[in-house]
Amino acid sequence: MTKKPKWVVEKEQAQRDEARATVWLFGLHAVRDALVNPARQKIKLVVTRNARDRLGEIVDSATCEVVEADPRKFPAPLDPGSVHQGAALEVKPLDWGLLDDIAVSGSGPIVALDRVTDPHNVGAILRSAEVFGARAVIAPARHSAPETGALAKTASGALERQPYLRVGNLSDALIRLQKMGYTCLGLDGEATVDLTQALTDTADRPLCLVLGAEGPGLRERTRETCDQLVRIDAAGAFGSLNVSNAAAVALFAAAQARSYSRS
Amino acid sequence: MTKKPKWVVEKEQAQRDEARATVWLFGLHAVRDALVNPARQKIKLVVTRNARDRLGEIVDSATCEVVEADPRKFPAPLDPGSVHQGAALEVKPLDWGLLDDIAVSGSGPIVALDRVTDPHNVGAILRSAEVFGARAVIAPARHSAPETGALAKTASGALERQPYLRVGNLSDALIRLQKMGYTCLGLDGEATVDLTQALTDTADRPLCLVLGAEGPGLRERTRETCDQLVRIDAAGAFGSLNVSNAAAVALFAAAQARSYSRS
Repeated sequence: MTKKPKWVVEKEQAQRDEARATVWLFGLHAVRDALVNPARQKIKLVVTRNARDRLGEIVDSATCEVVEADPRKFPAPLDPGSVHQGAALEVKPLDWGLLDDIAVSGSGPIVALDRVTDPHNVGAILRSAEVFGARAVIAPARHSAPETGALAKTASGALERQPYLRVGNLSDALIRLQKMGYTCLGLDGEATVDLTQALTDTADRPLCLVLGAEGPGLRERTRETCDQLVRIDAAGAFGSLNVSNAAAVALFAAAQARSYSRS
Repeated sequence: MTKKPKWVVEKEQAQRDEARATVWLFGLHAVRDALVNPARQKIKLVVTRNARDRLGEIVDSATCEVVEADPRKFPAPLDPGSVHQGAALEVKPLDWGLLDDIAVSGSGPIVALDRVTDPHNVGAILRSAEVFGARAVIAPARHSAPETGALAKTASGALERQPYLRVGNLSDALIRLQKMGYTCLGLDGEATVDLTQALTDTADRPLCLVLGAEGPGLRERTRETCDQLVRIDAAGAFGSLNVSNAAAVALFAAAQARSYSRS
């Protein structure tokens, strides 16, 4: 019997790790949203009596193990300082399927995040993506914010409803989208093209908005892959937007440009 | 000699407390921005040798007491978990003068925050306000985010440059602005008037954008004082924007509506 090469062993190990990976959601809002989401695989619910009362009937119909806990020794493995409000739920990450399938169905832009690692920013971006009807938010599998309780809490329910996909390589994903007809616009404070102008010029094509982390911005290869680099037109000469605020503005501008072009 | 009435004693005490109040800024970026701001009253700089090297010449020209500190026992009274990067600066809150003076000078909208208490949201709003050239961000003296190190860090320098004023009573401040010709537009997810439409209709008047805290939204009296309640037009039926994202979108939309009306 041939011995498996080391890379195969490692890949299989990584797949087993992924299959085992679970996430602890916390806070009444996030736990409630996950409990009522039929697509969400639930493993274990930990609630205080008080939180159980506040969650109501959905606890009784929960399809997972339910542990009623003493608030003074709350037995969920959360980070210290997590405001859990007496409710925590162990779940599997959601499976949103393949980017290629999402990209050819529905409408609205795709938001691509290039190494945006702060869960609060990604959570807020998921909320904005949902509000402005984005098809999906995509991020590389490595160096991005994993689906965690902190992200879910900031996302305020949007994590359950807004597709958030991890891709192996972001530039490769952008190239795949371009082959399907997408325009990829990369946000860059130093760009000379105005976002609104670019959105209007490309209003007849599906759109991918690409945002980088604050500080480093877009990586070299991401930047080169984008069809255009664009900036948000600003009155002030100073300062820069927080990345989630830049995403919200870009999504709003895209919704406007596309509705104007239809009317 | 007549004894002072109790309310006079209390008022004088509050004024003395305010005069004594100081803020500890932390992190290389926030400390550097405050050190180079001539309007900022500095009291004490605490730096590690490493941070001192990174801050460079501005430490030598600092006009306050400088304490070089051992990184293992950093002697600044910061909240645990504060990422200070070896630099902390005790300062006085900035004095931006009177709202009435700011309101009649310069251009750009005023942003009024009704009990937005989260320092990260207010910090991000100050950044967006600076980027989109807002005249000022105002908030009631009580029940709003005080000028703290956490706010300064999220504001990423904007706290030093973007006027942030506390007013005694927010509705009274809005009424004063209205008497000066301002239109006060209150953001409300339930409103029927579209933000962009309202901005276009009032493009010839100075603008105040009014935002409430997530959850409670605008208070009753704030809501009644606004000239119009408006919503951000969204494609999705679900979800809501984070308050700093809503502020960024509204400021962007205002900048656009006003530049269209000028062209």
